[in-house]
Amino acid sequence: MVVGGGFAGLQFVHAIKGSPVKITLIDRRNHHLFQPLLYQVATTVLATSDIAWPIRHLYRDRKDVTTLLDEVVAVDRAAKTVTLKSGAKVPYDTLLLATGARHAYFGRDEWEDVAPGLKTLEDATTIRRRVLLAFERAELTDKTAELDAQLTFVIIGAGPTGVEMAGMIAELARNTLPPEFRKVDTTRTRVLLVEAGPRVLPAFTEDLSAYAKSALEKLGVEVQLGKPVTAITEDGVTIGDRFVPSRTVVWAAGVQASPAAKWLGIGADRAGRAVVGPDLSIEGDPDIFVVGDTALVMQADGKPVPGIAPAAKQQGDYVAKLVKARLFGRAVPGPFKYRHQGSLATIGKRAAVIDFGKFKLKGGLAWWIWGLAHIYFLIGTRSRFAVAWSWLWIHLSGQHSARLITQRETLKEDK
Amino acid sequence: MVVGGGFAGLQFVHAIKGSPVKITLIDRRNHHLFQPLLYQVATTVLATSDIAWPIRHLYRDRKDVTTLLDEVVAVDRAAKTVTLKSGAKVPYDTLLLATGARHAYFGRDEWEDVAPGLKTLEDATTIRRRVLLAFERAELTDKTAELDAQLTFVIIGAGPTGVEMAGMIAELARNTLPPEFRKVDTTRTRVLLVEAGPRVLPAFTEDLSAYAKSALEKLGVEVQLGKPVTAITEDGVTIGDRFVPSRTVVWAAGVQASPAAKWLGIGADRAGRAVVGPDLSIEGDPDIFVVGDTALVMQADGKPVPGIAPAAKQQGDYVAKLVKARLFGRAVPGPFKYRHQGSLATIGKRAAVIDFGKFKLKGGLAWWIWGLAHIYFLIGTRSRFAVAWSWLWIHLSGQHSARLITQRETLKEDK
Repeated sequence: MVVGGGFAGLQFVHAIKGSPVKITLIDRRNHHLFQPLLYQVATTVLATSDIAWPIRHLYRDRKDVTTLLDEVVAVDRAAKTVTLKSGAKVPYDTLLLATGARHAYFGRDEWEDVAPGLKTLEDATTIRRRVLLAFERAELTDKTAELDAQLTFVIIGAGPTGVEMAGMIAELARNTLPPEFRKVDTTRTRVLLVEAGPRVLPAFTEDLSAYAKSALEKLGVEVQLGKPVTAITEDGVTIGDRFVPSRTVVWAAGVQASPAAKWLGIGADRAGRAVVGPDLSIEGDPDIFVVGDTALVMQADGKPVPGIAPAAKQQGDYVAKLVKARLFGRAVPGPFKYRHQGSLATIGKRAAVIDFGKFKLKGGLAWWIWGLAHIYFLIGTRSRFAVAWSWLWIHLSGQHSARLITQRETLKEDK
Repeated sequence: MVVGGGFAGLQFVHAIKGSPVKITLIDRRNHHLFQPLLYQVATTVLATSDIAWPIRHLYRDRKDVTTLLDEVVAVDRAAKTVTLKSGAKVPYDTLLLATGARHAYFGRDEWEDVAPGLKTLEDATTIRRRVLLAFERAELTDKTAELDAQLTFVIIGAGPTGVEMAGMIAELARNTLPPEFRKVDTTRTRVLLVEAGPRVLPAFTEDLSAYAKSALEKLGVEVQLGKPVTAITEDGVTIGDRFVPSRTVVWAAGVQASPAAKWLGIGADRAGRAVVGPDLSIEGDPDIFVVGDTALVMQADGKPVPGIAPAAKQQGDYVAKLVKARLFGRAVPGPFKYRHQGSLATIGKRAAVIDFGKFKLKGGLAWWIWGLAHIYFLIGTRSRFAVAWSWLWIHLSGQHSARLITQRETLKEDK
């Protein structure tokens, strides 16, 4: 049984193909989401259906795969069953938990309402709505203070998601929107990227970090490093001890693993990631594996494997190999080893940074490589065409295509 | 001032282009919606952004047009101002009210929660979610009665929207979904199309109505004519005096005009449509026009102009001509005359009926004409490509592309 239709879960299902096993794949959402491009939905570049695919549709031809739309609430290790929210208890022989992570507020959960994070499609349309409504409200107001607050966007956290969000909002305000507003000058928009650490994109080399920072500043983003956020309210954000009035705040700072460790009653780190052994199974239960963002997998250098898509896929692959080896009585593979294939991040619509270890690249060519790589990793011909077309359209016309304000409009009803 | 960015409002703005006037365009949504294809979003064929465009984006090059995202709450005819929800009072010289209609429940508003109608993008994603969740819940249940209720879809009202919804849900259940489910046989799905009147598509000739009915039945839709719905609950629908257990009910039966007549303090018919004179202005106030679905415009034969997109566009055009004639001191045009250009409706993915008066057509060729006509009427190159591509994809691959369940999942949170 596989719980979670993210990168790790789907890779396992893909790699186990052809083995004499029956797979039950459970996810509480009906779709697999290509999270690396989610920020483009939040910033009006792509439509929701460009980067999400119904899971059961992906496996329509895999008669060995049964897809269930339901949510795990408990695991009974003694009885070898998983309890679902609908009440059903589903038995398993081998269990793969790949249930991912949510954004986390370091114990300040009350910030979630005013500073949404970006993990699901609904998160993305919520942020998109708030960003677009801020410009609309700026156009409607007569008060200078309100105008300034509506035109101030604060992005908290300068990892790839924060950098990408900040760059795209700045592009939107400076290049796309100005001809559409009659009263407000959207080029006056302030985009603040706030990071408690000493540099942007800390997973990259210092050289690429410095380039990313200056590329952001060229787009008009104000980068504030080494400053923790101490308060967030509907009125604005307190950065260090300075209050910045802002109506739109986006959280890209921290994640919390899904409660897989709690279901299993095993140890976890502070971020809630379940402690697993070298073969990704849990202590005392070789038939239960935890992988992806919800697992704490240590590397030889003592650092944990990063919570990114390629790492999740490698883990899904590894467990499939291990399960197949056991099935066929072959020698099981050695401990899981993470191979870092590289890091990529974009800044706005024309620049990117790429770190493939020995091979490093920044600027326009990096952007094209980034784009082609992402199109390649999308699922299905249709999505590849749709995303390629959207990007080409934006490059040729300068227009964003997915600028809809949907769902309810007031903050209270967002919840 | 124009209130409402639907077909009538946009056509007015288009036709008045070049005149020495300043236009304020107010809509409570940020997008123009191509309503004739909304049912395709509800039935997973098209994505939301394929059929909706930000209004202010459409007029980025029209410096004479100022777009405001706000809602009218009152009109002060003496002071010549419109009061907005944000509190602003905006003055006008000439006022065009084109605020459309919502679905109506004939005084049974409590039905709305269990039988959503189809007028906005959110309506469409709500219906899409409910339709897809019904199949998911059917796959999860062990109880026969629950299974049958989940696989029973009731569409109320057999105008074009009802016919199109019923046809597409039947196609989805019979052709697209079967290979994706392991337990439930989705070809067992019942789709009931219930109509109180004597035939489907009453606006068409009897011959075309009969064809549409048999084409629906070929797709597996059960058409029930001459039977009013007397009750709708979460458990099902009472048709005449027979109760049909169903978890998914769609309302396509009636509309209620927006409250333009109330804002103006003028007479309206039972559906709330404001009574207007032969030149579409209101009695005693030649500078206020009401057009589109929110106006009651009588034809020479004593029948009202139908509430369809071409009629709304003709009215927007007419008022622009009239306003221009007054501006330049030219002879004003005679009374508004509606020219019926034809009626179109599709049944599933391969058939359609077309009634252009003398020229009538049904079947596959009609479907192609219908498709080309709708692509032609979409706004912008990008949308035309995107919709053409989606349809082509569906024809070639048989796969629907926009099958996402988004928003909250329980009925209570829909509200």
